[in-house]
Amino acid sequence: MTSVDLTGELNSILTDVAAGRLGIGEALRLLQRADGGNGHHRAAFMNLDHARNGRTGFIEAVYCELLATRANARHAEAAIAAIPDIEYHADARLLRRLDLKRKVIAAPVGVVSAGTSDLAVAEEAALTIETVGHDPRRHYDVGVAGLHRVTGIREDLNRCGCVIVVAGMEGALPSVVAGLISRPVIAVPTSVGYGAALGGLAALLGMLAGCAPGVSVVNIDNGFGAAVAACRINTPAERTSHE
Amino acid sequence: MTSVDLTGELNSILTDVAAGRLGIGEALRLLQRADGGNGHHRAAFMNLDHARNGRTGFIEAVYCELLATRANARHAEAAIAAIPDIEYHADARLLRRLDLKRKVIAAPVGVVSAGTSDLAVAEEAALTIETVGHDPRRHYDVGVAGLHRVTGIREDLNRCGCVIVVAGMEGALPSVVAGLISRPVIAVPTSVGYGAALGGLAALLGMLAGCAPGVSVVNIDNGFGAAVAACRINTPAERTSHE
Amino acid sequence: MTSVDLTGELNSILTDVAAGRLGIGEALRLLQRADGGNGHHRAAFMNLDHARNGRTGFIEAVYCELLATRANARHAEAAIAAIPDIEYHADARLLRRLDLKRKVIAAPVGVVSAGTSDLAVAEEAALTIETVGHDPRRHYDVGVAGLHRVTGIREDLNRCGCVIVVAGMEGALPSVVAGLISRPVIAVPTSVGYGAALGGLAALLGMLAGCAPGVSVVNIDNGFGAAVAACRINTPAERTSHE
Amino acid sequence: MTSVDLTGELNSILTDVAAGRLGIGEALRLLQRADGGNGHHRAAFMNLDHARNGRTGFIEAVYCELLATRANARHAEAAIAAIPDIEYHADARLLRRLDLKRKVIAAPVGVVSAGTSDLAVAEEAALTIETVGHDPRRHYDVGVAGLHRVTGIREDLNRCGCVIVVAGMEGALPSVVAGLISRPVIAVPTSVGYGAALGGLAALLGMLAGCAPGVSVVNIDNGFGAAVAACRINTPAERTSHE
Amino acid sequence: MTSVDLTGELNSILTDVAAGRLGIGEALRLLQRADGGNGHHRAAFMNLDHARNGRTGFIEAVYCELLATRANARHAEAAIAAIPDIEYHADARLLRRLDLKRKVIAAPVGVVSAGTSDLAVAEEAALTIETVGHDPRRHYDVGVAGLHRVTGIREDLNRCGCVIVVAGMEGALPSVVAGLISRPVIAVPTSVGYGAALGGLAALLGMLAGCAPGVSVVNIDNGFGAAVAACRINTPAERTSHE
Amino acid sequence: MTSVDLTGELNSILTDVAAGRLGIGEALRLLQRADGGNGHHRAAFMNLDHARNGRTGFIEAVYCELLATRANARHAEAAIAAIPDIEYHADARLLRRLDLKRKVIAAPVGVVSAGTSDLAVAEEAALTIETVGHDPRRHYDVGVAGLHRVTGIREDLNRCGCVIVVAGMEGALPSVVAGLISRPVIAVPTSVGYGAALGGLAALLGMLAGCAPGVSVVNIDNGFGAAVAACRINTPAERTSHE
Amino acid sequence: MTSVDLTGELNSILTDVAAGRLGIGEALRLLQRADGGNGHHRAAFMNLDHARNGRTGFIEAVYCELLATRANARHAEAAIAAIPDIEYHADARLLRRLDLKRKVIAAPVGVVSAGTSDLAVAEEAALTIETVGHDPRRHYDVGVAGLHRVTGIREDLNRCGCVIVVAGMEGALPSVVAGLISRPVIAVPTSVGYGAALGGLAALLGMLAGCAPGVSVVNIDNGFGAAVAACRINTPAERTSHE
Amino acid sequence: MTSVDLTGELNSILTDVAAGRLGIGEALRLLQRADGGNGHHRAAFMNLDHARNGRTGFIEAVYCELLATRANARHAEAAIAAIPDIEYHADARLLRRLDLKRKVIAAPVGVVSAGTSDLAVAEEAALTIETVGHDPRRHYDVGVAGLHRVTGIREDLNRCGCVIVVAGMEGALPSVVAGLISRPVIAVPTSVGYGAALGGLAALLGMLAGCAPGVSVVNIDNGFGAAVAACRINTPAERTSHE
Repeated sequence: MTSVDLTGELNSILTDVAAGRLGIGEALRLLQRADGGNGHHRAAFMNLDHARNGRTGFIEAVYCELLATRANARHAEAAIAAIPDIEYHADARLLRRLDLKRKVIAAPVGVVSAGTSDLAVAEEAALTIETVGHDPRRHYDVGVAGLHRVTGIREDLNRCGCVIVVAGMEGALPSVVAGLISRPVIAVPTSVGYGAALGGLAALLGMLAGCAPGVSVVNIDNGFGAAVAACRINTPAERTSHE
Repeated sequence: MTSVDLTGELNSILTDVAAGRLGIGEALRLLQRADGGNGHHRAAFMNLDHARNGRTGFIEAVYCELLATRANARHAEAAIAAIPDIEYHADARLLRRLDLKRKVIAAPVGVVSAGTSDLAVAEEAALTIETVGHDPRRHYDVGVAGLHRVTGIREDLNRCGCVIVVAGMEGALPSVVAGLISRPVIAVPTSVGYGAALGGLAALLGMLAGCAPGVSVVNIDNGFGAAVAACRINTPAERTSHE
Repeated sequence: MTSVDLTGELNSILTDVAAGRLGIGEALRLLQRADGGNGHHRAAFMNLDHARNGRTGFIEAVYCELLATRANARHAEAAIAAIPDIEYHADARLLRRLDLKRKVIAAPVGVVSAGTSDLAVAEEAALTIETVGHDPRRHYDVGVAGLHRVTGIREDLNRCGCVIVVAGMEGALPSVVAGLISRPVIAVPTSVGYGAALGGLAALLGMLAGCAPGVSVVNIDNGFGAAVAACRINTPAERTSHE
Repeated sequence: MTSVDLTGELNSILTDVAAGRLGIGEALRLLQRADGGNGHHRAAFMNLDHARNGRTGFIEAVYCELLATRANARHAEAAIAAIPDIEYHADARLLRRLDLKRKVIAAPVGVVSAGTSDLAVAEEAALTIETVGHDPRRHYDVGVAGLHRVTGIREDLNRCGCVIVVAGMEGALPSVVAGLISRPVIAVPTSVGYGAALGGLAALLGMLAGCAPGVSVVNIDNGFGAAVAACRINTPAERTSHE
Repeated sequence: MTSVDLTGELNSILTDVAAGRLGIGEALRLLQRADGGNGHHRAAFMNLDHARNGRTGFIEAVYCELLATRANARHAEAAIAAIPDIEYHADARLLRRLDLKRKVIAAPVGVVSAGTSDLAVAEEAALTIETVGHDPRRHYDVGVAGLHRVTGIREDLNRCGCVIVVAGMEGALPSVVAGLISRPVIAVPTSVGYGAALGGLAALLGMLAGCAPGVSVVNIDNGFGAAVAACRINTPAERTSHE
Repeated sequence: MTSVDLTGELNSILTDVAAGRLGIGEALRLLQRADGGNGHHRAAFMNLDHARNGRTGFIEAVYCELLATRANARHAEAAIAAIPDIEYHADARLLRRLDLKRKVIAAPVGVVSAGTSDLAVAEEAALTIETVGHDPRRHYDVGVAGLHRVTGIREDLNRCGCVIVVAGMEGALPSVVAGLISRPVIAVPTSVGYGAALGGLAALLGMLAGCAPGVSVVNIDNGFGAAVAACRINTPAERTSHE
Repeated sequence: MTSVDLTGELNSILTDVAAGRLGIGEALRLLQRADGGNGHHRAAFMNLDHARNGRTGFIEAVYCELLATRANARHAEAAIAAIPDIEYHADARLLRRLDLKRKVIAAPVGVVSAGTSDLAVAEEAALTIETVGHDPRRHYDVGVAGLHRVTGIREDLNRCGCVIVVAGMEGALPSVVAGLISRPVIAVPTSVGYGAALGGLAALLGMLAGCAPGVSVVNIDNGFGAAVAACRINTPAERTSHE
Repeated sequence: MTSVDLTGELNSILTDVAAGRLGIGEALRLLQRADGGNGHHRAAFMNLDHARNGRTGFIEAVYCELLATRANARHAEAAIAAIPDIEYHADARLLRRLDLKRKVIAAPVGVVSAGTSDLAVAEEAALTIETVGHDPRRHYDVGVAGLHRVTGIREDLNRCGCVIVVAGMEGALPSVVAGLISRPVIAVPTSVGYGAALGGLAALLGMLAGCAPGVSVVNIDNGFGAAVAACRINTPAERTSHE
């Protein structure tokens, strides 16, 4: 999986699809070509980051013969109007084609979060994992006041190839999980919180400073990035193909 | 308890005591007078903060008819040479007179820390609590990887009037403790850690952002301040005297 | 009191109540169940933090068989339409059921603020205190230019079990109050101010750096958190129940 | 692997070993006991973080029946004087017992760095990997001006179970490596640089913001943490033991 | 080229032009006069920065007998309605008069960017270069995953007088380009990205800390500033005129 | 002059005035009473800061028997509809009553700014100075590229009692002015600029770090505060009245 | 008064004076010449800032026909050995010639500080004021816990031409003083404190955000700068000379 | 010119040279080989950055067949003992071989600084320029209080191919210079100053935010980097050689 920026093309392609000026097959061909024809991207994700004007909102979309993240309701409407087999997950702000789901033989990937406020980021991770054919194991009930609940899921997490832990505010959960299991942990700080939470920076710094064994961290709210890293981890070296 | 700055006087007084030019009784009288003769400070702590030149090291000393914090070995030697009943706690960098310990009838005050690296701050808190006559209940074995151990001490902490939780790095411990007990929690971030720990800022921000119920926070490494707040909490309103 | 995140459920529950599809009793049962059936939460607050997308606004709601904070006019309308005994405090952005107010035998809790700009946070604290059965003592007239007025309320504050001091901008008020009384002080920085106020960070840092005796601090604008901590403080250790 | 803080014990144990008051076998027994007798730590690393006073220097030591990181020359002398089979790596500031090296059947772990200035952190990672029985594959010649050299090692890195990339200053290397290979990448920012490098924060932020596919990040200069995460990744889920 | 602030005048002039109350020739005369009649500005750019209220959006416009940057659709409409020979580049948010393009005999100026998300800033630079008569050489296909592509354009860049490199997120591209060519490089960080990207600060710090040879940096998103610097560089000392 | 917060009252009073439910005389009486009847505020300014919700916009109003700062068009309409002798300065976002202007015998107060983008802040200062009876001497034509122009106004500034210098971006102007004149300089950083300007922080830090002789600084965009300080400076000690 | 950097020359001049190679008269001539012969500096201060390598310590010296600030004991020894009429103030780290003190007919200048920890900065201000012939009125007993004491000195401060208020930690004192008096206040934050004090930044931000009437701020620990500003304020416009 | 890190090798090579174990010719061969034999580096600079442990001091050395920057007295002694034709510039902390100075036919390069406190950085730039054969034109007398002096050197600077402006504290000088001349300006912020100067960050941010025409910026104290960029600028595109 790799990432390219093609928001401009994406918008016009989607618009054309929505307007009936462009068929889905042709759209996918265009999306692949937008990647520059670079061989080893062909079957890959395309990660569209566009944050023109910094703070005013952005769209980040990823296509794996159709997976789009950070899609809002407006994007979803346009896509659904044009493409029959597509589904929209409003919580995770994610669009994906149903007929393209792959299935990989591998250990499951744990996705743990503290509560419903971190749900969107956790679901972005879980759905991405699912789309590329891995098996997400969701545990969304591990709140700050119920850290001891993690003991109940310890065995299940230890059977995972990798565990993603999503947490906002003080970001304590990854340290706790990593202390109880022996699998690699990818921590995702979220922008949940206010004041001293500094838009997710407090959680990010805490996760990095925590020095818990086997924990590594991705950017704030980057559920997609965590999923990509987890799936790489979950694929044995000998099984990856290198064109 | 209140705080005044009198490092200058303190140094010359200690030097004179060490040199035999000044008796202890007289020293204590001078220390009281240094407070400006302000009535309601008389039986109180004197908190000496002196951080001239910011980062180059500092001394913070507190006297309750003799309690001094942030005293290094050199300070200790001078004081011990001059004052027979004084003891020095190297870990907590704390000096205190043995014959002045008071005893207050009150619930114990819990002091919880994650490990030996936070010990100095935890001991500064515990010894301060002890000196003003309250009863510290130490629990220093609650590491990041053993957060579940806190369940073993839950009942003991619930019997405390207040619980101080000392933690560095990601500062997760106070949230966990506060989620398990019903007593007020005072969190003390420590400057333990490096890189993203930002000298204690990551722990401080995490503790504030954590929004755990009943948790409030003091400055980085401020074990003394936490102890003063805890003892105020641990003293019923009707029992405090107001000159 | 503890906190869980259940914005999703909350929204659908409130929507159903507003639409007449759900009775209040059933709503409360669902709200309790949303907490996961965890025993020691049953009679407790539920704190809903949801700041999806960081800066774009958020809702934080707390239910004690009905107390909701950070409720805007739209939330209020929906709730009032559905629940007869509910009242909305627009200043404090707080919703609560009238018939559920408890009464606890305890010292009053002081709530001091600098002026009307900090009013919303102070009222969030005061109404929370009131709802859980404690007795808030409001002093909202202690401006920057009238710090000497605090001397007039000194005796009253010294009779409180605990004093919450709400202040924005330079955050000087808690230090001043704590220097005059002998009760524990919980400082709440507010996001009032602009430029160097840095959205409340200047007040937060000042309160922590101030090292005033007996002061501890909660997150910016967190009037609810301060109230929870104050009520814990104000409840003697022997009186708290530990399931 | 997990981490505990036991600097105090460590110091007295090492001192006693150095003074001949304590045999090595007994020292190791004590070191194991210091961990609290917690079963699943027994054969594990012990990570000693002690940064009392924040900026003034610190020691972080890790024992795997003897592996110590962040050991300075003085620590090394004491250990070598007492323990015959120990070796000191001055560059990596790492002490380890020679007779305890394990051998695990697994893919190699790549360790890539930009130059000799990042060498200490890269070696801390590589030696840790080696000590726990995995096979580090060092590539230390990939400078800023020679990023194209990475193409020469691409095949070798793709055969690794995981690749650690160590980089200071702008932290560009992990993005570049991750764009060329399909294995998981753990990025380690280093404190190399001055001014706008902000002691490693620029590299850290860049690595997180880079959004390169499959990259996750650990704390600044934390070669040990990266190694622990890499070895967890490099051990298939079914092969980890869970006591 | 130099910069003056004259938003007020600009707005009323544009409004008058749009309303037909003012002819273009007169408008240009007024715009020149607004510069204060200062001789050496006469044939120069006028750089209008107006960010009243900091974060809420701004207009920065530059006139060279008509070049305006940071013009939104509304500005464009007004200008186009009034001035026949004007064209609007929506991507670059740039307005310019077609009949005023100059042509300078000089080496081309390279403009390199990582992808379409940085396109707006790159185009702001390229169109500015073009307008003042220099020759921009665009290379917008050099993504994070295709840094090796830069080798394909190396010869072309080495023939440029100066190369502008636009990059967001981790800001790695300028270091890589500067390591491969021998011409001066001006790096432009962009505000693309979220979380740890800190609105472009991560890229900015990385570019400065990178210490790549021959790289200097301008403000975040400042494509215009980079173009002005590049054109100064691209004009030999003897050819510049000094009134 | 002093400041109180009374946004709540202010809004209802203005609304009532606008709705004809309240006469102006009564409104002013209420506004005076809102100050709490505190004697030494009676003839003074009332400074209304209200930034509830931090970044979402705010109103700061100051009344000197009617002076209001940070009034937007909506506020202005309401006030003008109700109060005949009031004028609104849109640039400075300032409302004031015409019949209340005082005249003080004193040296003029210089108000210098770099350009039209800093105009709003400069005008807030100048109009405040004028309203309390002092004589502002405006110099708004001193741009970054025309710092030498300040030599032309040097004599005029040296005749002022005090000089306010308003500057955004790098904040260089106050240092330059203070180096050329012998009068006290009050520097006002503005939030003009983007990226590295950090909403005015770059200018603020530069002005403080500049160490130019006789310069002191007020908060970002605080033209009113600078005016109040300047008028205090411009009033000889013996002439101030102390109730 | 103005400032130039001439540490290099200063060091060699002082060394030569200390070694007897240079007479005092000649040294002063050289010091004046070092200023570049610029007319309007001749009778003025020379402010030497030298902080090569940022954090490693620095010397800042000011000469008014001999006044030197930030002089350490080593500088003092050298100067005293060479110049008979010189005195060294260790607290304020200030050297000055006794025979050069001037006397100006003006109101006194108040210098207020919170305690002995801020003494060095307060004395740097007071001695500078004294040296240029103004009359400092010291009030060093206004601690955090005794803010009400300021009421006792209110009348005295209101008779001053200007009041300097020195405060560390939360920086509350200037707001309080400015609320009680009608004279201009110059606030000096100090680097006293630790943790959240951030080396004086918390005090600095608080003073700026405080928005107290008539307060302006200088750099952290800049007692000299405050004194220069205060003396400019304290000199009526008509009395300043402009060469 | 490009940069590699080879501190380790450098140290052993220098040590061997100093000990007579290695001849100079052989040392230079080794230094060239250390670069990896990469063709286009052969005749180039080698930039050695080594800041192990961030704040504790570092060495950055650059060799152009011998040019070393950031060399302290100890480094100098070793080098001088071993290499006869070498000279040490203590102010600029720079070592260079005398017999290797080249001469290039090109316009001069201006080096402007505010005063002696910025001298070290300015000299690092000037000596680097000189060593690679370009002609530095030093102007070190342009202080904050004498910005108008720059008018006297305007003509001289306009004849330069490029102008480096070194400035600490508020970093105003580059904006002023760039406003007066038409040549490209490279700004170098220095770490001179204290408090709000934030170790050079205030100057850095100011220079970037200043938006002066034709200015670009390098890292704090990076005189060498500015010189390398300036020499690239000063070499016409057609004259650079591309192996």
